[in-house]
Amino acid sequence: MTDPDLEAGEAMQRLLASARTALGEPEPFTFAGRRLTPAEVVAHLAPYLTESRRARIEAVLDERTYTVVPVVEGLINTGNVSAVMRTAEALGFQAFHVVTHEAHDDGVRYKTSPRTTQGADKWLDVWHWPTPEVCIAHLREAGYQVVVTHLDDRAVPLGEIDFTDPTALVFGNETDGVTEAMRVLADRTCIVPMSGFTQSFNISVAAAVCLYHARRDRLARQGFHGDLTGAQRETLRAVFYLKSVRRSREMLARLTRS
Amino acid sequence: MTDPDLEAGEAMQRLLASARTALGEPEPFTFAGRRLTPAEVVAHLAPYLTESRRARIEAVLDERTYTVVPVVEGLINTGNVSAVMRTAEALGFQAFHVVTHEAHDDGVRYKTSPRTTQGADKWLDVWHWPTPEVCIAHLREAGYQVVVTHLDDRAVPLGEIDFTDPTALVFGNETDGVTEAMRVLADRTCIVPMSGFTQSFNISVAAAVCLYHARRDRLARQGFHGDLTGAQRETLRAVFYLKSVRRSREMLARLTRS
Repeated sequence: MTDPDLEAGEAMQRLLASARTALGEPEPFTFAGRRLTPAEVVAHLAPYLTESRRARIEAVLDERTYTVVPVVEGLINTGNVSAVMRTAEALGFQAFHVVTHEAHDDGVRYKTSPRTTQGADKWLDVWHWPTPEVCIAHLREAGYQVVVTHLDDRAVPLGEIDFTDPTALVFGNETDGVTEAMRVLADRTCIVPMSGFTQSFNISVAAAVCLYHARRDRLARQGFHGDLTGAQRETLRAVFYLKSVRRSREMLARLTRS
Repeated sequence: MTDPDLEAGEAMQRLLASARTALGEPEPFTFAGRRLTPAEVVAHLAPYLTESRRARIEAVLDERTYTVVPVVEGLINTGNVSAVMRTAEALGFQAFHVVTHEAHDDGVRYKTSPRTTQGADKWLDVWHWPTPEVCIAHLREAGYQVVVTHLDDRAVPLGEIDFTDPTALVFGNETDGVTEAMRVLADRTCIVPMSGFTQSFNISVAAAVCLYHARRDRLARQGFHGDLTGAQRETLRAVFYLKSVRRSREMLARLTRS
């Protein structure tokens, strides 16, 4: 069976790749060797969700966006990464990129702290990259401008960025900020205006302020934050259903086998 | 010698009381038994500060306000309180109230974590209160509306609060939020709009979002954030000079003795 959504162009391919990453599966909607469309996944699982749960999922989908994408680079404290994920999820940003420098992670896959995210990472499309170069190449190909939070000569206040444009917003690590390699790749640098003796924010605070600002900026400029396409929404609904129903994958494997 | 600023009314009395708390001294500008005016303190200490340091202090004073006052209630993790202080300082909020419930602190004075604030508390007027009642009575007498971040039936989105009105903004603890006692005392409750599966923010994130929002709201409504009166500015300049010059109090004690 062919999924017609697979034909929906590059954006959809990216979304599916993203969903695959999130699900930790090479083929997200394949069960016992048979591929299901997102609509089929949803139809099979809907009876196992309460009406209020389904309504909650639709409310979340209403406010989801891929237009602004948080990227955290080389954070040493995984609790900080998790805190940023939790904020991103609460504010409707669906994709989340983590650049783990190879030198730091010794090949060990980055782990989030379940306590700090409170499961937020479960609902996000989390991407892991070994270097800034591959991460940014991917985001550029997908049409994002790259804005790095970093104070330098060309840095503009956060308020000057138009967050209705596809924008990857990069946060650096706790002590050194973003790496030189990342700064070279950026289109722009921006700062959160500060006016005290304190010269920097805690990383989870900086990210929260920037993501809250981005959401408000989008609402002010265009009147809405969430902007999924129909196909994105359908795919993401299937992903959320899969994650909301206990043992959903086993259940669908049995169904498709029979 | 009489300080004419002491006659400047109730607001000034409050400020001085606040400065006293911040300095940990019963009389902030009294040295070897002799009282100095803020202007005298500044005149004595100015030669010990570089021109760029003095300019920095003026820039900080430009953006300082007492109109919006963060209050944190019963936080268990002192690192979280310190993170909120750091954010408040960076965004120009000068007064900071901590309600330590007597049952929790066993009479031990609340301690901040120097690492997390990065010295931010040094620059703030930090008040400590044993109960919500005394804290809120004080703030009410000083003319503040009391807004508590808490989700209940009457909660309004953060965007509906007018932060050009004198406002105390209360944040509760990590697990239970604000206490019932505090909620009863509040004029209003407000929430940060969230649209994900995540139902709450980390406390330092919630406070950062609210304080950033308050600053933006003030800028949008009236075009400025900092709004010290001339007398407040003069007093706070003296406080900042005292804190910026090494062994400043000993130096002024020697000077006034001679």
